[in-house]
Amino acid sequence: MGKGYLHVYTGNGKGKTTAALGLSLRAICAGKKVFFGQFIKGMDYSELKAVELLPNFEIQQFGRDCFIFNEPTEKDIAIAKEGLNKMGEVLVKGEYDLVVLDEINVALYFKLFSLEELLAVLKNKADHVEVICTGRYAPKELIDLADLVTEMKEIKHYYFKGVEARVGIEK
Amino acid sequence: MGKGYLHVYTGNGKGKTTAALGLSLRAICAGKKVFFGQFIKGMDYSELKAVELLPNFEIQQFGRDCFIFNEPTEKDIAIAKEGLNKMGEVLVKGEYDLVVLDEINVALYFKLFSLEELLAVLKNKADHVEVICTGRYAPKELIDLADLVTEMKEIKHYYFKGVEARVGIEK
Repeated sequence: MGKGYLHVYTGNGKGKTTAALGLSLRAICAGKKVFFGQFIKGMDYSELKAVELLPNFEIQQFGRDCFIFNEPTEKDIAIAKEGLNKMGEVLVKGEYDLVVLDEINVALYFKLFSLEELLAVLKNKADHVEVICTGRYAPKELIDLADLVTEMKEIKHYYFKGVEARVGIEK
Repeated sequence: MGKGYLHVYTGNGKGKTTAALGLSLRAICAGKKVFFGQFIKGMDYSELKAVELLPNFEIQQFGRDCFIFNEPTEKDIAIAKEGLNKMGEVLVKGEYDLVVLDEINVALYFKLFSLEELLAVLKNKADHVEVICTGRYAPKELIDLADLVTEMKEIKHYYFKGVEARVGIEK
């Protein structure tokens, strides 16, 4: 097994979680095992059904059924911390080849846990595990640690035309 | 059925084809039908195996078994034109809810067909079909026509560390 790298997909454009899903699909096609941890989001996203379609795919949500708009509640913090602990275990154990921490940057932005806690979890991963962190607002320290960083930059978005999130496309 | 929109994923960063794959997976999870046309690439990518795993997923390649490095050959042009014709039929027919024209921008950049030919195909699509165009070098006219555009901007890439394309991650 080769070394696993750390990817960060950040920025304000569409395509971050979607790229993580695409990488998951490609990895599974190549016979790899994938764990997809979804922070912030606890709603019924279409991708949750992927476990029924794909082998070696695990998805778990560490968010509530609504977004955080202003201040996070104690419950938001508790769920996110529990999620980070779980992801820490998954990363150390190394049973999964590709591990996604979806919207982890947003969880960090809302201070659901500290940057130090996240960096410790990432640095402690089994060497062969490939890791993906997604979400707006990736901090400089995470970018410094990462091996690959893409900024998804919004050039044009249809929500300005009044198009709301649609099942199978955004959620 | 609602209106389908045109997405463009461009820029020099990793995540364009991957985002299109992720959107395909999400759409399939929501019961939609997906046609994934892959221009330029004719190599054995892991995602080709997705047809065995996913229902309602069709993938077809319109490229050769090597990249175009300098000038495209007549064969490159013939395969790409055939591909554009095929995608035109798929888009008009409207049998698939989500249609991906992967690396179409690169095919255009190499002048395998003209911008006018591509725009005609896109403008002629069945109204409900959601379309994704990927690849570096999206021209202004395509961006103008699109409803959603994300630029995947490379901030950091591990190929500078000498990491080559790996099965299940890049291919």
